[in-house]
Amino acid sequence: MSQSILIIGAGRSSSSLIRYMLQHAKTYNWQIHVGDQDLSVAEAKVGSSENGVAFAFNALNREERLPVLEKMDLVISMLPAHLHIEIAKDCLLLGKHVITPSYVTKEMTALNEEAKKKGLLFLNEMGVDPGIDHMSAMKIIHGIKAKGGELLRFESFTGGLIAPESDNNPWNYKFTWNPRNVVLAGQGGTAQFQQNHELKYIPKHQVFQRVKPIAIDGHGEFEGYANRDSLSYKKVYGLEKIPTIYRGTLRKKGFCTAWDVFVQLGMVNDDFIVEGSKELSYRQFTNAFLTYDQTKSVEEKLQATFGLSEEIMHKFRWLGLFDDTIIGLDEATPAQVLQQLLESKLQLDEDDKDMIVMWHRFNYIIDGVEKEIHSSMVVEGEDPRFTAMSNTVGLPVAIAAKHLLTGELKLRGVQLPIDAAIYEPILRELEDYNIIFNENEFDA
Amino acid sequence: MSQSILIIGAGRSSSSLIRYMLQHAKTYNWQIHVGDQDLSVAEAKVGSSENGVAFAFNALNREERLPVLEKMDLVISMLPAHLHIEIAKDCLLLGKHVITPSYVTKEMTALNEEAKKKGLLFLNEMGVDPGIDHMSAMKIIHGIKAKGGELLRFESFTGGLIAPESDNNPWNYKFTWNPRNVVLAGQGGTAQFQQNHELKYIPKHQVFQRVKPIAIDGHGEFEGYANRDSLSYKKVYGLEKIPTIYRGTLRKKGFCTAWDVFVQLGMVNDDFIVEGSKELSYRQFTNAFLTYDQTKSVEEKLQATFGLSEEIMHKFRWLGLFDDTIIGLDEATPAQVLQQLLESKLQLDEDDKDMIVMWHRFNYIIDGVEKEIHSSMVVEGEDPRFTAMSNTVGLPVAIAAKHLLTGELKLRGVQLPIDAAIYEPILRELEDYNIIFNENEFDA
Repeated sequence: MSQSILIIGAGRSSSSLIRYMLQHAKTYNWQIHVGDQDLSVAEAKVGSSENGVAFAFNALNREERLPVLEKMDLVISMLPAHLHIEIAKDCLLLGKHVITPSYVTKEMTALNEEAKKKGLLFLNEMGVDPGIDHMSAMKIIHGIKAKGGELLRFESFTGGLIAPESDNNPWNYKFTWNPRNVVLAGQGGTAQFQQNHELKYIPKHQVFQRVKPIAIDGHGEFEGYANRDSLSYKKVYGLEKIPTIYRGTLRKKGFCTAWDVFVQLGMVNDDFIVEGSKELSYRQFTNAFLTYDQTKSVEEKLQATFGLSEEIMHKFRWLGLFDDTIIGLDEATPAQVLQQLLESKLQLDEDDKDMIVMWHRFNYIIDGVEKEIHSSMVVEGEDPRFTAMSNTVGLPVAIAAKHLLTGELKLRGVQLPIDAAIYEPILRELEDYNIIFNENEFDA
Repeated sequence: MSQSILIIGAGRSSSSLIRYMLQHAKTYNWQIHVGDQDLSVAEAKVGSSENGVAFAFNALNREERLPVLEKMDLVISMLPAHLHIEIAKDCLLLGKHVITPSYVTKEMTALNEEAKKKGLLFLNEMGVDPGIDHMSAMKIIHGIKAKGGELLRFESFTGGLIAPESDNNPWNYKFTWNPRNVVLAGQGGTAQFQQNHELKYIPKHQVFQRVKPIAIDGHGEFEGYANRDSLSYKKVYGLEKIPTIYRGTLRKKGFCTAWDVFVQLGMVNDDFIVEGSKELSYRQFTNAFLTYDQTKSVEEKLQATFGLSEEIMHKFRWLGLFDDTIIGLDEATPAQVLQQLLESKLQLDEDDKDMIVMWHRFNYIIDGVEKEIHSSMVVEGEDPRFTAMSNTVGLPVAIAAKHLLTGELKLRGVQLPIDAAIYEPILRELEDYNIIFNENEFDA
């Protein structure tokens, strides 16, 4: 009997998911329904496939949504994270499984008991970060525990970056996902982690000052800054007694020092409108965040305020931070002005390739000897459509969907991919798509 | 005929207001109704006065509120600022005048036309800051304009401080108003001002680093940090073309450098719960905001991180920031932990006196010559009840009420005290209560 799968949202991060589902549809007798607010976006992704249907779909309209959900066996929500919950509640009512790539929320967790009772799986955090990070880390953590090792340290970093062959600017960075989220990153709140049993808190205005250098064999030098919440992973990963836990975001070496200047100046702030933003030049905008001193140029003031090297000043000059170009944005916040400037210079070109880098470090003691494992994944995009982001977010979702539909995946309730029954077959199959971890173990 | 006045809220900042109204009640044939959630608080303030009535009053309950408001001629709301609007809407309906000491909001401004139509005055910002600051500044600004001067600069600072005779700690500070507001001050957002036609923005995490030194004759050295919003006062004060405008908060010299350490560490943040806050010591709490380094003590790390002088380190040692004392607060944010520590050391003693300091600076050109005016007010509290805060907040409200009730004050609609008809008689009468500005004019 044929099974019907609804994919809600056909945007950039759904490309690889939709391709996988369509490629496997005939074998498994699937009907793939791809709904998007914008019909043409859904149509472009489904193409001429026999097993796919593209349709205009406003998932936010409950009257429109319910009859569609009702016909499905599985619903994959690729909507913005805060919208999954409404879909999930309806699916609970109608008895449909749900998969999302997003962080599980309290509201989602609250559906756990009833989902179990009804024999439904609500599987979340199935993308890359969160997603592949959990799966690859849990595989190693379970392995260490199985052989009797005691974990001392877990550090994990992920970054959405530009592939080396497309890396042609002094920032070694381009926007491979939502630029606004990049500009506002680190605005979320105080970073919280633990180092040798000591709690550590870094306020958001200092996260780019306290970075960790990370070298990955064959891929060069990176730096990592702390994510908001590492402490809650002690519980999620079953590492309640681990002395050191730290999760962070990766950038190419040198990026954070320059980005920190934006943070220190206050240019990433989104809490007020820059007076007369439409008529100001970028140079005037920059000057507004520096002290008043008519004896110095804007460049001299910036360099002196932060003691910047010529290399970093070059990044800002290249970006146009001192240019007389008019901003032209009406009633813009500093973050909006900065975003526009960055987008004008750090946009992906048509033949650029993106790159996802993940790096884990584990220290553990076994038989009185301390061991260390480094595990890294470096994935480049295929082309502008099937980016590394799209592959690493969409393929785990797709493979999990397959296992659920074939009956191999028997877990029910609200879940994350931290159980071997979920992650083992998925990590195995991801290797066919060049999503591969290189592991290295040595005496610490 | 007797007039009825309702004072809502009989807390600390209402003492001087209630005293003034009761003292003048017989002369003007007033009935003073003092309502507070806590009857005993209202009773203590009214005492045995013949012209006052204390009663338990829940102003948030509309059914309880309406019949009380209905009997009044004037309503003075000393509630927390965000609660005035509900009172004002009812007063508009019932045809009652309103006075508050708080910032006027958009919702309040929206009542302007209808209030005018009904012949009602809704007078706001009648305290000290906002209040006396507006009145004393407008008096000088109007004077400069009247004689044909052109304003170049307006700077204004106010601080709630401790009187010199009660100043006996290394911070030269005690809590003379809500400690939570003091700890969270500067969290409000980016400071915005203008310097010689250049817009200037200081992000909240840097306001205590960019302070202005201010000396007031006979009262010593202070420093001022920028308030959130100075730019909007260009319009309020009719200074649309002024090159320089800056409003700030005053502290004793040296305070800001030390306080900035709390800000840089992230201890003033209120956005997360410190894990295990109940069992941690203040020393462990402090260490959580510093880097991990087992070769150094917590003191050494703090001093080295910020390059602190021994004088500043003494402030932190005196406060107990390195003590092994257990915090004992369950599920506390950093700001709550810091507040508890500060309150344990910087509380007003019973016979302590507070002090309000205000300082304005005006530069202007007249007949081609640049002149400068300094205007300062230093007010000490009478005793723990009639504090400087209570006098400077409550007396302008009370005097305005008198002028309204006697018919001298004819202005109607939603107003601030920026009109000579309001501020002139009030400033004059405030001098009887030792609220006096010292002016100094010289060639700049």
